[in-house]
Amino acid sequence: MTQRRMPLLDAASLQLEGKNMPMHIAALMTFSYPSSLDEAERRDFVSRLIARWREETRIVFPWNQVLTRPTRWQFRPATREIYELDLEYHLRQWSLPAPGGEKELGQMIAWLHELPMDLEKPLWECHVIEGLSDNRFALYIKIHHALVDGISGTRLLVGSLSTSADTLSVPMWAKDQTEQAPKAESTPAKPGLPSFGDVKAAFEASLKLRRSNDELTTFRSTPDTILNGPIGPHRRVATQQFGLARLKTLAKAADATINDVVMAITGGALREYLLEANALPEDSLTAALPVSTRKPGDVSIGNQVSMLFGSLGTNIADPALRLAQVKRSTRAGKALLNDLSPNAVNFYSLFSTGPFLTSTMLGFGSSGRQLFNTTISNVPGQREIRYLNGAELLHVYPVSLIMPGVPLNFTCVSHGDFLNFGIVACRDRVPHVQRLAVAMTTAFEELERCVLNSPQG
Amino acid sequence: MTQRRMPLLDAASLQLEGKNMPMHIAALMTFSYPSSLDEAERRDFVSRLIARWREETRIVFPWNQVLTRPTRWQFRPATREIYELDLEYHLRQWSLPAPGGEKELGQMIAWLHELPMDLEKPLWECHVIEGLSDNRFALYIKIHHALVDGISGTRLLVGSLSTSADTLSVPMWAKDQTEQAPKAESTPAKPGLPSFGDVKAAFEASLKLRRSNDELTTFRSTPDTILNGPIGPHRRVATQQFGLARLKTLAKAADATINDVVMAITGGALREYLLEANALPEDSLTAALPVSTRKPGDVSIGNQVSMLFGSLGTNIADPALRLAQVKRSTRAGKALLNDLSPNAVNFYSLFSTGPFLTSTMLGFGSSGRQLFNTTISNVPGQREIRYLNGAELLHVYPVSLIMPGVPLNFTCVSHGDFLNFGIVACRDRVPHVQRLAVAMTTAFEELERCVLNSPQG
Repeated sequence: MTQRRMPLLDAASLQLEGKNMPMHIAALMTFSYPSSLDEAERRDFVSRLIARWREETRIVFPWNQVLTRPTRWQFRPATREIYELDLEYHLRQWSLPAPGGEKELGQMIAWLHELPMDLEKPLWECHVIEGLSDNRFALYIKIHHALVDGISGTRLLVGSLSTSADTLSVPMWAKDQTEQAPKAESTPAKPGLPSFGDVKAAFEASLKLRRSNDELTTFRSTPDTILNGPIGPHRRVATQQFGLARLKTLAKAADATINDVVMAITGGALREYLLEANALPEDSLTAALPVSTRKPGDVSIGNQVSMLFGSLGTNIADPALRLAQVKRSTRAGKALLNDLSPNAVNFYSLFSTGPFLTSTMLGFGSSGRQLFNTTISNVPGQREIRYLNGAELLHVYPVSLIMPGVPLNFTCVSHGDFLNFGIVACRDRVPHVQRLAVAMTTAFEELERCVLNSPQG
Repeated sequence: MTQRRMPLLDAASLQLEGKNMPMHIAALMTFSYPSSLDEAERRDFVSRLIARWREETRIVFPWNQVLTRPTRWQFRPATREIYELDLEYHLRQWSLPAPGGEKELGQMIAWLHELPMDLEKPLWECHVIEGLSDNRFALYIKIHHALVDGISGTRLLVGSLSTSADTLSVPMWAKDQTEQAPKAESTPAKPGLPSFGDVKAAFEASLKLRRSNDELTTFRSTPDTILNGPIGPHRRVATQQFGLARLKTLAKAADATINDVVMAITGGALREYLLEANALPEDSLTAALPVSTRKPGDVSIGNQVSMLFGSLGTNIADPALRLAQVKRSTRAGKALLNDLSPNAVNFYSLFSTGPFLTSTMLGFGSSGRQLFNTTISNVPGQREIRYLNGAELLHVYPVSLIMPGVPLNFTCVSHGDFLNFGIVACRDRVPHVQRLAVAMTTAFEELERCVLNSPQG
């Protein structure tokens, strides 16, 4: 029995698993049925897909990994390989009630997403959903964060689809994708031993986050809001998407990054939501922005991530000024990270978010002061058109996780010509997550009007 | 805030709730759409039902009860009344994937049934399922065993439906049914104080169950089987039904009760299942048979139950001889119970199953010797035809719970002209529960052939 010790960050994702906080992430992928199908073939498409995929006997990494001990309570967890899958369990078929629109889909995804995974089984599930309106069906794939991060998960899923409409797709758990990556780069470079200077620099940088600072968005900047507090076991999920071309035009005109624009849009939506509830704090809301620490070309599976903190400018009514504030804040945050050597960044992650994660692990996550108000994560995707047995992949929506104290998560991933958002929230704490999704569109349009029509361009 | 202390047996159902053992019970009710509907009206029927029911603001007992402390770890739990329901949570709409047959329905029910309830909310859920073949839809209603037993639960659910096809049904949580019961009998008679003689008789009777006995089926009679052992978190559910007239003819011809016939059929099915697995024990399997301790006319809500133990005759190849063995065994068991005064019966329940329940509560339920191999429960139903907004109720299937060590439960309830079975099993321990359902039909037919065609009638 070959055992594989989990890397530290993967292990942390397992150790954080707890009541009301399952630590899996997921992707929702929508497809359009091949236009060549007649009515009867379309009706059978998903059933036939399920039947064919249930006959698949190959299983590759990481789909073949099970925990050697199915519990979060272990210091250094390990997985072992298995050679048989119960595909009646891991591959399921669902049908949306009529009219099968985004509302019905969101409710079903929320329900599937809130259910913790069985730690005794391989830590993934694939749900195929038919009955979606406008000639579509959907895949919702759930993977434990202990196996993949957003980047490697998205790559695994989208990469398992065909680039041609004329080939049959191999199920994701049977598609060995390591061969497609340059062999030398398939394992992350081992960092050298950290120097005393690295540790000291990391510690000093993390200390800055705990103090007030005019330039930098720190934990001290974070206000109390009605969107923070304990989380329950239930979820709400909403989706939204924006054209990449529009986002790029806007970012270029404002001399900002796409990430800055995403933050300003999210900030605008949160501002409207909180104004409506008469609960907008005087200080701006802050966000944690996971940033990848992967080297270019690193296509390994697992977790490699640090954190940036930024202001969302929710206290600023003018959209363009809000974006300017976001820019200042993220630039200061990036400068802090860029001053650190690669070795020091790991220690910085540990020092800055370690206390939060430790208290979450011990069950105190939602007591005391919030370090940040929400999480906004941008996961790079792929432009290439992909197919599942001839059905074109339309959108990929990430469905992430929430933590005690931070019951609202925005994650986006690009696919084709779109940037797609998955918004995940605690059902009781954020009752109107659909309104947030709609408010993002309004905020985007307002920002476009302000930036693109203003004389200073 | 009015608090209501839970009666002891109700409280025990909450205290037993644990990992892999959610303590809720459920009913699956199938309906046929009113024949007057055209295609479009039929498609809208469930959506309109959901929309109308979500507007209902009345909530009656026990649907309005929430735990004052949402945990099993309390000595004397209590509930309090609430005045508002989150009906997007408690009332849900589902659609079966094609072809929407009994297999797809069984898989969806198994999935819904294995999910533990949220102890922070009122302890019930109502799921409406469309897409069922043959012009049908279904309701699956889950209620925690701490609120109702099988008898009061079935009565609540079926009683909430209309007796006429021409009236709109009030949702079950809004239908006050206490007024229909004779007021004087709506509360169970308080038992007098037990005498020393009662306790002594109960203790002596329970001791008999722990010794070998030629007549009586005791815990000593119970063999080890592949159908016993620890239970996991997942479930399988199958259904079966037999015409009541056929059952009665058979019971009369064999001078047996319907319950005896049910046990002989179940024994026959288990015998075939174990023979096929080459794992039939030399001694007969035994069953625990919950028996109601309700007085006639007692329509109160809650738990009132004791236990009978009987042999299933699985070691006897001849169906008629198997039934004769079942008869002998249940008569001896009933004689034991009948010798006890009503007060003593409660102590007998405590002494006989108390050690099992205590060890289950402490998490040792599946270690050590099994007291019995399976549970067979017969819940009285109603003959009267019932309607839900004009849709006729076809069948009511009970979906019960399983416990560590006893991963297989047969529960039946009569409705109209049928006795309907719900078979619930641990997914991993009993992989072929559908085969058991089919084997019951075979066993029934064989028993009919033997008993009805034999010269001695």
